[in-house]
Amino acid sequence: MSFKISDKIKLAVKQSPEQVTRINIGDLTIGGNHVIVMAGPCSVENREQLLKAAQVVKDAGGHILRGGAFKPRTLPYSFQGLGEEGLEILAEARDKTGLPVVTEVLAPEDVELVESYADILQIGARNMQNYPLLKKVGKAEKPVLLKRGMAATIEEWLGCAEYILAGGNMNVILCERGLRSFDKVTRNILDVTAVPVIKQVSPLPVVLDPSHGTGVRSLVSPMAKAGVAAGADGLMLEVHPYPEKAMSDGAQSLPPEMFRRLMSELKPVAEAVGKSV
Amino acid sequence: MSFKISDKIKLAVKQSPEQVTRINIGDLTIGGNHVIVMAGPCSVENREQLLKAAQVVKDAGGHILRGGAFKPRTLPYSFQGLGEEGLEILAEARDKTGLPVVTEVLAPEDVELVESYADILQIGARNMQNYPLLKKVGKAEKPVLLKRGMAATIEEWLGCAEYILAGGNMNVILCERGLRSFDKVTRNILDVTAVPVIKQVSPLPVVLDPSHGTGVRSLVSPMAKAGVAAGADGLMLEVHPYPEKAMSDGAQSLPPEMFRRLMSELKPVAEAVGKSV
Amino acid sequence: MSFKISDKIKLAVKQSPEQVTRINIGDLTIGGNHVIVMAGPCSVENREQLLKAAQVVKDAGGHILRGGAFKPRTLPYSFQGLGEEGLEILAEARDKTGLPVVTEVLAPEDVELVESYADILQIGARNMQNYPLLKKVGKAEKPVLLKRGMAATIEEWLGCAEYILAGGNMNVILCERGLRSFDKVTRNILDVTAVPVIKQVSPLPVVLDPSHGTGVRSLVSPMAKAGVAAGADGLMLEVHPYPEKAMSDGAQSLPPEMFRRLMSELKPVAEAVGKSV
Amino acid sequence: MSFKISDKIKLAVKQSPEQVTRINIGDLTIGGNHVIVMAGPCSVENREQLLKAAQVVKDAGGHILRGGAFKPRTLPYSFQGLGEEGLEILAEARDKTGLPVVTEVLAPEDVELVESYADILQIGARNMQNYPLLKKVGKAEKPVLLKRGMAATIEEWLGCAEYILAGGNMNVILCERGLRSFDKVTRNILDVTAVPVIKQVSPLPVVLDPSHGTGVRSLVSPMAKAGVAAGADGLMLEVHPYPEKAMSDGAQSLPPEMFRRLMSELKPVAEAVGKSV
Repeated sequence: MSFKISDKIKLAVKQSPEQVTRINIGDLTIGGNHVIVMAGPCSVENREQLLKAAQVVKDAGGHILRGGAFKPRTLPYSFQGLGEEGLEILAEARDKTGLPVVTEVLAPEDVELVESYADILQIGARNMQNYPLLKKVGKAEKPVLLKRGMAATIEEWLGCAEYILAGGNMNVILCERGLRSFDKVTRNILDVTAVPVIKQVSPLPVVLDPSHGTGVRSLVSPMAKAGVAAGADGLMLEVHPYPEKAMSDGAQSLPPEMFRRLMSELKPVAEAVGKSV
Repeated sequence: MSFKISDKIKLAVKQSPEQVTRINIGDLTIGGNHVIVMAGPCSVENREQLLKAAQVVKDAGGHILRGGAFKPRTLPYSFQGLGEEGLEILAEARDKTGLPVVTEVLAPEDVELVESYADILQIGARNMQNYPLLKKVGKAEKPVLLKRGMAATIEEWLGCAEYILAGGNMNVILCERGLRSFDKVTRNILDVTAVPVIKQVSPLPVVLDPSHGTGVRSLVSPMAKAGVAAGADGLMLEVHPYPEKAMSDGAQSLPPEMFRRLMSELKPVAEAVGKSV
Repeated sequence: MSFKISDKIKLAVKQSPEQVTRINIGDLTIGGNHVIVMAGPCSVENREQLLKAAQVVKDAGGHILRGGAFKPRTLPYSFQGLGEEGLEILAEARDKTGLPVVTEVLAPEDVELVESYADILQIGARNMQNYPLLKKVGKAEKPVLLKRGMAATIEEWLGCAEYILAGGNMNVILCERGLRSFDKVTRNILDVTAVPVIKQVSPLPVVLDPSHGTGVRSLVSPMAKAGVAAGADGLMLEVHPYPEKAMSDGAQSLPPEMFRRLMSELKPVAEAVGKSV
Repeated sequence: MSFKISDKIKLAVKQSPEQVTRINIGDLTIGGNHVIVMAGPCSVENREQLLKAAQVVKDAGGHILRGGAFKPRTLPYSFQGLGEEGLEILAEARDKTGLPVVTEVLAPEDVELVESYADILQIGARNMQNYPLLKKVGKAEKPVLLKRGMAATIEEWLGCAEYILAGGNMNVILCERGLRSFDKVTRNILDVTAVPVIKQVSPLPVVLDPSHGTGVRSLVSPMAKAGVAAGADGLMLEVHPYPEKAMSDGAQSLPPEMFRRLMSELKPVAEAVGKSV
C-alpha cells in the first residue's frame, strides 16, 4: 500500500493486509463475498408509497430497505420528512418484508429514537464532519453507514469513521455518493476509485451510491455495475414506485422495472469478480 | 442583478437594491461603513494565552475577540477545546478589554450554554448544512456568524442563512473562509469574489477570513486588504501571541507585530473604498 | 436523453439513439462488441524497452501498442521523448508484432510526420483545446484519439471532437483519463461516469485510461474492470517491462505479470455486459 | 518563503527575496510601482469597433490595448477572429493612440506574424501547456503574457513560464484569469491569492483578469480593486464600446463609462498600497 494516509488513524486503517471487518445484520453479512443492495425511496412520503417500494425491493432481490424520515433539505421551506411517523412506517415495512432498514439521523438528540426503529443508522454527506453526532453514534448499538462528504478527502472520511470506531462502535460501513464537480452534466462526480482505495487501505466495508452520485436515472445501472466490478461491498439505490411523483430525487430514482432489470444484470458482473449478489 | 439564485430564498436575498441588514453589538455596527476586525487565536488554549491575545487585539484596534472553546477536529485524538472552561476565559477577556466575543458552537444542545457567554455564535464551515443546529440558532437571541462550507455554492450558503432567518433570528453575518482546491500551494482557495456577490445579492453583512482561506501567514495581509477593497464588511483573523507554540493553525496565525502592522495598513485601503477601519 | 449539451454540436452528438461510429484499424473494430486494449509504456525510451513491451502486450492479448515519442512534460529540463527515432521504433514494433500503434502528436507541424508512422494520432489532455492542432488532425487520414482535458466538461470535450469531425475526419475515439481533484490520494479523479454519458449522448467510441486516471498501479486493475462494466469500448493502459526503471509514470505502470492477469480477469467482466475482450 | 514549489524550476522562481523582473514596453514598465491597465474588447470585430475601444481606453488612462485576432472558441462554427486583418487594425489603433498592443497567438507557425504586429504576445489559458508554442515564443523578441490554465497549479504555471525563460525570452508576464469552479454563480473562481503567492515566489510580474475571472460585469470593478490591493502589477480588462453587441464576452465587458469610473476609483486603492495607476 502506497497511499498517504495519516498514521494517527488507527482503527479505520488496516493493520494487516488481510484485516477485514464483516458486519452482520440478521442473516446478512456486509463486507463478505455477497454484494448487498440497499434500495428504496429518497424520502418516506406516506405508508402506501413506502410499503409498495419495500415490496418492489424485496421481490427483485434487494437486501436492505432505505428511506429517509429526517431529511436534510437545502431550504427550510422544503418537505423535511415525516419524522417519527416515517420511522414507524419503515418498521412496518420491515415487518412485512423482512428487510432490515437503513435511515438517516440528523441530530445527536435523535439518535436514540432512530436507533429504536432502524437497523442501520445513516450519517449523510452534509453531516460527515458533524463530530458531536459522530460521537453519539459511536456509542450506539446499531451499525452506522457513513456517507462521504461532498468535498471530503478519503483521509478526512476515514478520520470521521475513526470518531465512531473510537467511541466503541466497530460496525461502520462507508458509502461513496459523489463529489462536487465543475461539470453539471451530472449532479456530482462519482468517485468509483474510492472503492478500491478503501478496500486496500481500510478494513471497513464500502458501498457505492450511483443514484446521488450521478443524479440521472439512465446512468444508475452502468455505474452500479462499475461499482461492483471495482469491488464494492454493496450498492445504495433510489427506487420509487412512481418516480415522476417523488417528493425528492425523482430524476435519479429507478422505477420498479428498471430496478428489477438491474438486479438481474448485476449477477453476472458480481460473478465475474468472484462474488454473488 | 443577474445572478441565478433560487427565488425560493426570501429573507437572505435582497428585496430591493438598497436593502441592508445592520447588526449592532454594543457600540459596534456590522454592515455599515466601518470595517469590523474579529481577531484572536484559533483555540482558547489557556487563560494566559487568551488574555494576552485579547490585549494584543484590543491594543492594535481590533473590534471583536475570536477564539474556539469547542473545536471541530479532523481526528478524535486531537485537542477538542476547553469547552465551558474556554467560554469562561473568553468572558473574562471581554470583561478586561471590552471586546465582544465570537465563538463556535458545534451541537444543538450546546447553543444555550454558548449563548450565555458569547456575543456572536459561530457556525463553522463543517456545520454549514447541519440543519438542526441552524434551526436552534435561529431561535437564539445573539447574532450568528455563518461560515461557508468548503465546497458550498453561494446559493446553498444563502439557503442555510435562510434557515436561521426563517427561525426569527435576523442577525446573520456571512463569512467566506476558503474553498477546497486542487492546488496545495495554499490550504484553500479564498473566494474573494463571494464578497461582492453577497453585497449585490443579499442584505446580510459578509466578512472574509484570509487566515483559513490561505493557511499561510505571509498571505494574510495582502488578502485582508483584497477583501476590504472588494467591499467586505469585516475580517476574521487568527492572531496568536506565540504562533510557533499554537495548538492549532500556527502556520497561519499572525504574531502581534504583524497584526499591528496589518491594522495600520488596512486604514488607507478602507478609506480608498469610502470606509474606515 | 436528458443531458444538457449544446445543440450547436452536430457531428459529435447522436442524431438518433441507434447511431454508432465504428472505427476500423486493420482487423480491429473500435466501437463494436469487442473491448479494445491499448497498452504499452508512457514513453518510448529505447528500442529494447519498446520491443519488449510490445511483445508483452501482444502475448497477453492486447490489441494496440501505445508509446510516446513526443512527450508533453511539466518542465523543459525533463526528457522530451525520442521524436522521430521513437516513431521508427514504434513502427518496427508494429512490424514485429502486428499491433497497430497509437502515439501522441503535439504540434500542427508534426502531424504529417507522426501520421506517416502511426495508426492512430493521439491528442493529449493538455492539448484538448489546441484548436490549430485539432483542425490539422481533422484533415488527417488516420483516426484520432482525443483525450479529455483535465478540467474539461463533457460538452467542451465534444466541442473539440466537433472540430476534428467538422474537418472531415470522422474517426474520433474519445478517451477519459482522469480529472483534477482536491484529493491527492490518487493522481486524478477518474470520471468513469463519462463512459455511459458518452455512450448515451455521442456516436463516438470511448475508452478509459485508468493508469493516468489513478496514478497508482494497484488501482489500475479494479478501475479497468469498472470501465468495462460501465460500457467502455476500450482501455488505455501503461505497461512497462521494468516499471521501476521507467523514465516517466513508473508508479502507475503495470509490470508484465500484472498486465497478463488483468487481461485474463477482464474477460468475464466483458462477457457479463455482453461483450468480449 | 514556505511554498512547496519544485526546486527544478530555476528561472521562474526567485533566487533571492529582492529579485524582481521589470519589463519595459516603450515608456511603460511592468513590474514596478505603477499598476498597468491592459484593456480592450475580447475580439477585434471590425475597424470602427476597435478604434473606438482604443480611444476609450486611452482617454480613461489605460496603458495597453488588448484585443483578439485569433480566437480560441469552444465550437468550430463560432467566429474565429479576423486573423491578420485583425492584427492590422490593432496596429492602426496603436498608431492612432500610442497604446502598445497585446494579442493572442494560437499556433507556433503564427508567432512570427503576430510578433510583427504586437507588442506583447499572449498565450491563452487553453494553451498554457502547449509546449511547442511555449518553446516558439521563448525564441521571440517580444514579451509574453502567459495566462494560467483553468485548472493549473501555480507550480505548473511557473513550469510553463520556465519553458519560455529557458528559451531565452526573459520577459514573461503572468496572468491569473480564474479557475474552474463548481459554483456557476460566476463563470470561474478568480484566484486573487495567486497574486501574492507569485509576488513572494517568483520575480515575474503578475496581472489579474477580473473580466474572465468573474464573467459578470458588476463584479469587475470590486475584483479589480481587490487585485490591486493584493499587489497585482496590472489588470487585464474587457472594455467594449457597445457590450450588448459584442460578438463574444459581452456579459463581462465594461461599457466606456464603467471603465472610466473604475480607472478613477483604482487610483486611491493603488495609493493605499504604495503604488500609482
